[in-house]
Amino acid sequence: MEKLGIIGGLGPMATAFFLEKIVGMTEAARDQEHVNAVVYHAPAVPDRTSFILNPQAADPLPALVEAAKCLEQAGVSAIAIPCVTAHYFRESIGEAVSIPVMNAVAFSTEVLKARQICRVGIMATDGTLASGLFQKELESHGMTAVFPDAAMQKNVMSLIYDYVKAGKEPELRLYEEVSDALQAEGAEAVLLACTELSVIAARNTLPGRWLDVLDVLAMHCVERFARLKEGIADSLLHG
Amino acid sequence: MEKLGIIGGLGPMATAFFLEKIVGMTEAARDQEHVNAVVYHAPAVPDRTSFILNPQAADPLPALVEAAKCLEQAGVSAIAIPCVTAHYFRESIGEAVSIPVMNAVAFSTEVLKARQICRVGIMATDGTLASGLFQKELESHGMTAVFPDAAMQKNVMSLIYDYVKAGKEPELRLYEEVSDALQAEGAEAVLLACTELSVIAARNTLPGRWLDVLDVLAMHCVERFARLKEGIADSLLHG
Repeated sequence: MEKLGIIGGLGPMATAFFLEKIVGMTEAARDQEHVNAVVYHAPAVPDRTSFILNPQAADPLPALVEAAKCLEQAGVSAIAIPCVTAHYFRESIGEAVSIPVMNAVAFSTEVLKARQICRVGIMATDGTLASGLFQKELESHGMTAVFPDAAMQKNVMSLIYDYVKAGKEPELRLYEEVSDALQAEGAEAVLLACTELSVIAARNTLPGRWLDVLDVLAMHCVERFARLKEGIADSLLHG
Repeated sequence: MEKLGIIGGLGPMATAFFLEKIVGMTEAARDQEHVNAVVYHAPAVPDRTSFILNPQAADPLPALVEAAKCLEQAGVSAIAIPCVTAHYFRESIGEAVSIPVMNAVAFSTEVLKARQICRVGIMATDGTLASGLFQKELESHGMTAVFPDAAMQKNVMSLIYDYVKAGKEPELRLYEEVSDALQAEGAEAVLLACTELSVIAARNTLPGRWLDVLDVLAMHCVERFARLKEGIADSLLHG
């Protein structure tokens, strides 16, 4: 029985929603038709952004590799990480195991490209922005990443850390301001490029046009490990 | 780092909600304060009720034991199973590993007893009813289990198999009829003793007075592996 491996807990609520998305996107009339998976839910992994911005901070890589090895041991045949910032470590994790580690950054870029979106507003952690992950991927496809300015980026980080990770209901005004600013800079759609923002999207109605990286990753997992419901691919881009 | 083990996928959506409940019940200001866990999400496990009612059917025990052993190998220190029917196999699973397998049946009984509820309406699968799990546990505490009659039990099984496991929105009328009938039989509260019913409870407003086994199990997991939010214990009994 082929099994999906998930390195979760980064953050914890995003992982619960990721599993919910996978189940919800699966065409199944009974339990036995669903994706089999092992979730290594490890919120104890040191903060990714802290390390990317300051290499003196605790390094999350050893814990991520430990998670990947445990999943490999459990017999999974591919690993998904429902945390965009952790994609900074994706290649290093992949070198430690002999199974593929899915690339949510590439998957999201493909979806946007297929919808002929050229300028993409990126809402992500400071760590993801500093890593240049999306910038490189989008540029390699002739697309442009549009980032929030410093003040707006503070809104994004506040939504992620002060609200979702702290277990508080987010102030949607903070999101709207960033979304409006990115659109004003010519972004044709906003990419929710942090799975904590996916938690906000799952619980609220967001303005503007947006794509959620967590949806894209979940879709790929279902396509590979079960049967995808009809219409999912067409419903990914909102607004 | 102490880790919780979860045998999940029975059913799949209940497991996603179970993880969501654990995260939501945890008092935490950042990722690192959350429960660490490994979820062995195995919807492929043969149907529990089918086997309990007909021992010629595929036996789920080997797959459940395999899951438990994999979790033990991954270093978890206790196992929770967010599937009530699977509690029929709880002792056998426990014999195959050297870590405790939590007892959601006993936990739920304790909660009801503390609230001085004597007559408990049970909504569960045919398998759970046939196993006598709740009947024995409640009676050993001087309480009484009240079961739906045959027609009402068909409603319960339909909600579980034709709606939740089949990925369909449930007809709440089916639930209301059972809830009313159990109350008419003197039930002071209804126990949602199948985690598929917890999925309905998470998405709808249910009538009557009820307790969800999944909530109780999640609370115990948080108490043991992290810090429980204030007020959770007092909010378990609804209506």
